[in-house]
Amino acid sequence: MRIALDAMGGDNAPAIPVLGAVEALQHIDADLELLLVGDLDAIRQELQGLGAPRNRLHIVPASQRIGMNDPPVESVRRKPDSSIVRGVALQKSGEADAFISAGSTGAIVAASILVLGALPGTDRPAIGALLPTVAAHPTLMLDAGANTDCRAQQLEQFAHLGHIYIQDLEARARPRIGLLNIGAESGKGNELTLEAYGLLEQSDLNFVGNVEGRDIVKGDCDVLVCDGFVGNVVLKFYESVAAHVAQLASQAVAGAQMDVDLQNICRVLDYAEHGGAPLLGVDGVTIICHGDSPARGIRNAVRVAARSVEIDMVNHLRRELSGLVSARA
Amino acid sequence: MRIALDAMGGDNAPAIPVLGAVEALQHIDADLELLLVGDLDAIRQELQGLGAPRNRLHIVPASQRIGMNDPPVESVRRKPDSSIVRGVALQKSGEADAFISAGSTGAIVAASILVLGALPGTDRPAIGALLPTVAAHPTLMLDAGANTDCRAQQLEQFAHLGHIYIQDLEARARPRIGLLNIGAESGKGNELTLEAYGLLEQSDLNFVGNVEGRDIVKGDCDVLVCDGFVGNVVLKFYESVAAHVAQLASQAVAGAQMDVDLQNICRVLDYAEHGGAPLLGVDGVTIICHGDSPARGIRNAVRVAARSVEIDMVNHLRRELSGLVSARA
Repeated sequence: MRIALDAMGGDNAPAIPVLGAVEALQHIDADLELLLVGDLDAIRQELQGLGAPRNRLHIVPASQRIGMNDPPVESVRRKPDSSIVRGVALQKSGEADAFISAGSTGAIVAASILVLGALPGTDRPAIGALLPTVAAHPTLMLDAGANTDCRAQQLEQFAHLGHIYIQDLEARARPRIGLLNIGAESGKGNELTLEAYGLLEQSDLNFVGNVEGRDIVKGDCDVLVCDGFVGNVVLKFYESVAAHVAQLASQAVAGAQMDVDLQNICRVLDYAEHGGAPLLGVDGVTIICHGDSPARGIRNAVRVAARSVEIDMVNHLRRELSGLVSARA
Repeated sequence: MRIALDAMGGDNAPAIPVLGAVEALQHIDADLELLLVGDLDAIRQELQGLGAPRNRLHIVPASQRIGMNDPPVESVRRKPDSSIVRGVALQKSGEADAFISAGSTGAIVAASILVLGALPGTDRPAIGALLPTVAAHPTLMLDAGANTDCRAQQLEQFAHLGHIYIQDLEARARPRIGLLNIGAESGKGNELTLEAYGLLEQSDLNFVGNVEGRDIVKGDCDVLVCDGFVGNVVLKFYESVAAHVAQLASQAVAGAQMDVDLQNICRVLDYAEHGGAPLLGVDGVTIICHGDSPARGIRNAVRVAARSVEIDMVNHLRRELSGLVSARA
């Protein structure tokens, strides 16, 4: 199995992606090779002294780089030799089975759609974000930001994508599907969620109904469906509120006891634990890491990508979605 | 000044609203009388032993009650003698200057619109929620849930409503207006926020641009504008995440030191401090309290209502909005 990794993406590239790659090869016991995509010299320099197993770690040169604030679609078109476009394209050419990047989310999404395309039955792919909860498992919220305006049919597609992902990657049977909404009752919501509620109710999914903002952290559902605008606001807000409250707690209490315990709190809320957000519904495996992912986050993303390839998630999604299309036809 | 208070609204009614009313009269040094609206016998029973100044505390009997899960508009039409409809109507008849309730938000909004009407230049009123921030002041987010689907013009109206509220109630000059969005740059957003951005940019408000989910807690704006769906999700999510993290911190650290400090953390995140959410854009003063507001929350809501009446906020809003209408004409 070969996984491509964007060496130029993220706040601390190429140092962190390169370190994450090396750590992944050291920790993940699999038939795994990694392809670092990016500036050859810079990557070679970072690799010095890391003791990387060179037979499992390869460099794919890419001369261009898409910045975090560059316009996504335009950049993808204008920079065919960027690490993101080259990295995604390695799946198309059969040289890699998955792609991971901590670079511009918009550019990763745009490149994946343009190069790999969406799966039949999917209008557009969605970003799945694993949100920490007080329950035993995180909740996969999607869309976390790939689609700013959605139709109800898309929300139903997101539900199917999440259903398969949680079944396959988290090994949870009959995932509970929730709809992010502003009331618990079926008659609550805006035009979009009212219509989506009807579609989800009629589907063969394990739809558990509306989930209010206050219930997200409870973890009463495995998959939480929403449009990408709301999902993006919630995701970014979650990160910041958690950090804010942890900081308040830290200021309030001094001493080593607290330092240790604060780490525990932060771990519950640490997105790096879950190893990046899958872009679901694209014809390939794309994992998006947080821009400030530590090496551990990259390493965990490699683990998630490897598992996705291993279980052939994309073809499972393809079957699920084509079943949906033919059931409608 | 006379303020009507729904004695039957909230999780612990009539005990908490009655206690809150008595405390308000004890603490607020103003020419203030309170009208408790609801079941005469139940209110009288709660008043026993509280030492309420009876010349400043009156009971307005209302035989019906709207439950938290009753359909709002239908209930308001079917229960004309409910504490909410009677309480709102006291403003219309000139018997009260404001109304406060911890009951069903939907019913309070519906009754206020049906009985009092919206101010000229306002399509529909919006709920303003004061969100705690790490800055010195909270941010007024609106709409927090009165309008599930909004047009861009409504978001602009919300901005004007919030502008006046923060100027008058919080005494902050030139309030900074932010637009809740999924990117900091002007070209980011969904159809609604892209159009609203243009309107806010052209307005004479102190528009400071887009505010991402992660920036809400920073408090970089005084007024944060969004549609009621997103606002409601954010508000409820905020409450629950804050409680969740505070709980984790509490579990992690034992001892009296932490108990004290945890109270400080919770106070930062305590909505009761701010005394309820104003319904802005309605032709009257309506304050919505949290269903589980403690007596202190009710007392602070009375303070906010009294201040709103004192400074004649409604007529200030009327002038601002009519100026907006005539500037357009």
